[in-house]
Amino acid sequence: MKARENLGERRIIEIIQSRLDLLPKMPIPFGDDISAYNIGNGKLAILKTDMLVGKTDVPPSMSLWQAARKAVVMNVSDFAAKGVKPLAILVSLGLPRKLTEKDVEEIGRGLNSGAREYGAYIVGGDTNEASDLVISLSVFGVAEKGSLMLRSGAEPGDWVAVTGLFGKTSAGLKILLEGFKAPKDICDFLVEAVYMPKARLKEGLALAASKAVTSAIDSSDGLAWSLYEISKASSVGFLIDSVPVAAEAAKFAEMNGLDPFELAFYGGEEYELVLTVKPRLWSRAEKAVKDVGGSLIRIGRVTAEKRVLLETEGEKRVIEPRGWEHFRRH
Amino acid sequence: MKARENLGERRIIEIIQSRLDLLPKMPIPFGDDISAYNIGNGKLAILKTDMLVGKTDVPPSMSLWQAARKAVVMNVSDFAAKGVKPLAILVSLGLPRKLTEKDVEEIGRGLNSGAREYGAYIVGGDTNEASDLVISLSVFGVAEKGSLMLRSGAEPGDWVAVTGLFGKTSAGLKILLEGFKAPKDICDFLVEAVYMPKARLKEGLALAASKAVTSAIDSSDGLAWSLYEISKASSVGFLIDSVPVAAEAAKFAEMNGLDPFELAFYGGEEYELVLTVKPRLWSRAEKAVKDVGGSLIRIGRVTAEKRVLLETEGEKRVIEPRGWEHFRRH
Repeated sequence: MKARENLGERRIIEIIQSRLDLLPKMPIPFGDDISAYNIGNGKLAILKTDMLVGKTDVPPSMSLWQAARKAVVMNVSDFAAKGVKPLAILVSLGLPRKLTEKDVEEIGRGLNSGAREYGAYIVGGDTNEASDLVISLSVFGVAEKGSLMLRSGAEPGDWVAVTGLFGKTSAGLKILLEGFKAPKDICDFLVEAVYMPKARLKEGLALAASKAVTSAIDSSDGLAWSLYEISKASSVGFLIDSVPVAAEAAKFAEMNGLDPFELAFYGGEEYELVLTVKPRLWSRAEKAVKDVGGSLIRIGRVTAEKRVLLETEGEKRVIEPRGWEHFRRH
Repeated sequence: MKARENLGERRIIEIIQSRLDLLPKMPIPFGDDISAYNIGNGKLAILKTDMLVGKTDVPPSMSLWQAARKAVVMNVSDFAAKGVKPLAILVSLGLPRKLTEKDVEEIGRGLNSGAREYGAYIVGGDTNEASDLVISLSVFGVAEKGSLMLRSGAEPGDWVAVTGLFGKTSAGLKILLEGFKAPKDICDFLVEAVYMPKARLKEGLALAASKAVTSAIDSSDGLAWSLYEISKASSVGFLIDSVPVAAEAAKFAEMNGLDPFELAFYGGEEYELVLTVKPRLWSRAEKAVKDVGGSLIRIGRVTAEKRVLLETEGEKRVIEPRGWEHFRRH
């Protein structure tokens, strides 16, 4: 029998799901980024829960304020990817005994900052003693039926785009966890990407309103993994022809003899949106994002064959379905 | 500076709350058992989160199926106390590495059983690695504005009632954790109360529909604590004249030289409802509960002075505002 360490998150979710009775007429199938419940009048209650665990989600030297804020960002990012405004957030805390009053205060401030940054409010919660720091949030919102951007819906010929550049967080984590080096300005920039992630909420809401998007997901498990998730849910593949590597990450890779593609595709904890757009509606989607101060970067197109290929300088290589694995504090 | 071990759950919640911006026109103030968000058309989204932690909420020898089911019961009980039907549940799991595929399956089955027992469905979730077993649930429901039973609302002269007898769980925990003994039939009964708690959902829904209730809470932190919580939220006190001790708990107390009142008032993890009723509407409330197969037991009345007194055989004694403290596995 496999023990937990060999099971992996996806297999665990599979096992649990297989034991559940299905809500009749479930508005969104299991496996998308959020859950929904039909509340009538053409509206859906949108629900999401995600847990931050100190050991695997909080790099050393990240403050408790930052960790608490990050717990909010993690959850809001999934709302962003579906184009739904987060309204109310509940907090369930597991706190180690050693935390002081000041620590708890910092967590409270971080939660509030994260929520207010995205227009939501913390409306309730609960606290418990636990060995690890655990910040489990659940987020509530309301969406019009049919307005959600789902993982399914991408079609061959669609363009695939992202809302920002990749590789910053994976480079930052290499600095924080593996002792890699970079000049101060680049180092600060990359580490800041880890400490202060941003959810692309404005972009997600604008994209959903544009009605130009056929599928969307956030990139918290890495760009490669996100592409494979859309691939699975939409039964399509991707040909990526432009790799959206951040300049600082490229520089960091060069200086340390690392592959910048590796940083960009297999990093994680990066909260860009990955989405597909009808080519004839591209300019509408692009404008929608620009109007809210963001940018939409085309990185390739949707193909019929269910795999993800990268084409650079006329050469094709297969992007592996590898996901971001949470790190582990020792 | 106080460290976590000296802080206590209530102080932690106080600190966190003091750092939060308040949702404007919050339909239910902080500090009640559930949170609410106004979704228009006279309706409120009802939200609740509660976390089960292996170390403090799962007695040794409780199965994972039972633990997962209990996590649901803990949350549903708060919906019951407010008179709201739970509709959808999200699960956020923290799983220790040592868990096997069979363990995970058991958790899945327990969650499903708990949810279906109360008419709800598990609609989504997330899993993470953690040192402790953590089952953090969030529950969603919809309520008509003004239909909720809150902690506030009790008035002097109201009667106070409960939906069942007390002391079983605290006796059961003494057997499981402290090595106390009882004859097999009593022992089995008391231990079963720990393993298979029930939320009084039918009773809570019937009571809310009866419109006879002025305040309500569940007794998960102990009967004494629940009375003090209503006392605080409603600015009233209580004179308890009849102590609702379960016969098995009384017998157990007698055999072990324990105070049955202690078991009944300061136990916890018992999921009865504690509520106040207008005396002229008592028979309506009683009938509502009886009609769904339950029973409503009058235990005293609401007083103007903000303290909880117990009157037995003409003698008054003060019930202390002591709550149930989670046990700790060693």
